Amino acid sequence: MTEPVLPRTGIAVDVHAFADDQECAAAEDGLVPLWLAGLYWPGERGLSGHSDGDVVAHAAADALFSAAGCGDLGSNFGVDRPDMKGASGLRILAEAAEIVSRAGFTPGNIAVQLVGQKPKFAPRRDEAQAALTRAAGCSVTVSATTSDHLGFTGRGEGLTAVATALVIPTP
Amino acid sequence: MTEPVLPRTGIAVDVHAFADDQECAAAEDGLVPLWLAGLYWPGERGLSGHSDGDVVAHAAADALFSAAGCGDLGSNFGVDRPDMKGASGLRILAEAAEIVSRAGFTPGNIAVQLVGQKPKFAPRRDEAQAALTRAAGCSVTVSATTSDHLGFTGRGEGLTAVATALVIPTP
Amino acid sequence: MTEPVLPRTGIAVDVHAFADDQECAAAEDGLVPLWLAGLYWPGERGLSGHSDGDVVAHAAADALFSAAGCGDLGSNFGVDRPDMKGASGLRILAEAAEIVSRAGFTPGNIAVQLVGQKPKFAPRRDEAQAALTRAAGCSVTVSATTSDHLGFTGRGEGLTAVATALVIPTP
Repeated sequence: MTEPVLPRTGIAVDVHAFADDQECAAAEDGLVPLWLAGLYWPGERGLSGHSDGDVVAHAAADALFSAAGCGDLGSNFGVDRPDMKGASGLRILAEAAEIVSRAGFTPGNIAVQLVGQKPKFAPRRDEAQAALTRAAGCSVTVSATTSDHLGFTGRGEGLTAVATALVIPTP
Repeated sequence: MTEPVLPRTGIAVDVHAFADDQECAAAEDGLVPLWLAGLYWPGERGLSGHSDGDVVAHAAADALFSAAGCGDLGSNFGVDRPDMKGASGLRILAEAAEIVSRAGFTPGNIAVQLVGQKPKFAPRRDEAQAALTRAAGCSVTVSATTSDHLGFTGRGEGLTAVATALVIPTP
Repeated sequence: MTEPVLPRTGIAVDVHAFADDQECAAAEDGLVPLWLAGLYWPGERGLSGHSDGDVVAHAAADALFSAAGCGDLGSNFGVDRPDMKGASGLRILAEAAEIVSRAGFTPGNIAVQLVGQKPKFAPRRDEAQAALTRAAGCSVTVSATTSDHLGFTGRGEGLTAVATALVIPTP
């Protein structure tokens, strides 16, 4: 009788601050663009930083690394990978799935929850899930909640995403 | 040889603010009742909002939705479901398990952790786990911690619950 | 045909505040020592409290309890276990794995993510993972992120660790 192969679970939190007024004033149309869950959100204030700040895609990628024991976003896409500087969330997620596969794991599913007061996520859930699932090569589901106006997400200072992933050793 | 069916993992955070002094003053006995983990907690200040604010039951339900890819609390129990307005946490959890089952998934287990300085949870853990397990139709375990007086839970502004769930495609 | 045995998932958050200036002044060399992920971090300010405040090891242990339904850190290592007072994170994790095994579960894997601005974790990841894996008797992976200077971890008031674990009923 063969031992059943146990999947492995992983977890990740990702946080990005919203761009401040100064960063927005410096942007082309007075608003840093918001990229979230692999989608562009017209008219919404974007997140700060060198990458596109897509917390949903980043948390999904980091949960894969966590489950497979492949380090994290920083160790995989840091200074050693100048080609990834400013990479989109979808590209980061696709690369993460590739790295995890090369390490001997098949992604099972990824579940992400966005925590923030806005943007209103539900109307674009299907579109987001399709884009992220295509990038990861496994099912990615996205839910959303607010933090009831508490903490930094509640004050609108930034967005948080939490994610979990299941991977299985490739036979 | 048949492929083994892989379970799916899900994750959820739920946050509710405590009722403020004004809301308590308006309540019948000067205290908004606290419902948490499916139980009534006499003498404890309750949470704010239209629902009973049961973060433990809500996080459990949302983790099921997350694992099964059935949207989230907002999309399932929002404006389209006036019958769920003010529903108890246990009813929300039971409905979530029903929705997930109809979508083709069997709940495996749900694990929830309550984060807050009070109420002291441990003395009522068994009672809470029994009530939630009955509602969900699968094992629900509940643990508790404080945030060491840091952040909004540490300042007693509200409660947070984090949850994960495992579901398996129904054969 | 036998039913496949489904694993169980668990989740945990652990938070500790950094020692304040007064606590550091009272320490032998003007700095409360930092123990994190089972390792000593020379020159870094430690965490406050009676235990060593190792959020990574504590979250790992609590995620095991959560998955197996064995209560939590407080209920297992509270006032009833004076021998565990001041116990190291590694000892707490080893004891947790022992308790979960006695309850009939085999730990599958534990994944932990450290959330904080410092210390810089990546250079010591391998060492930390080896120490924690040895203590738990199952694979423990550790990733790290910052909260982009937001919230209490962003202000350097404390450290958070989030963890998930998979356990399987022992045949």
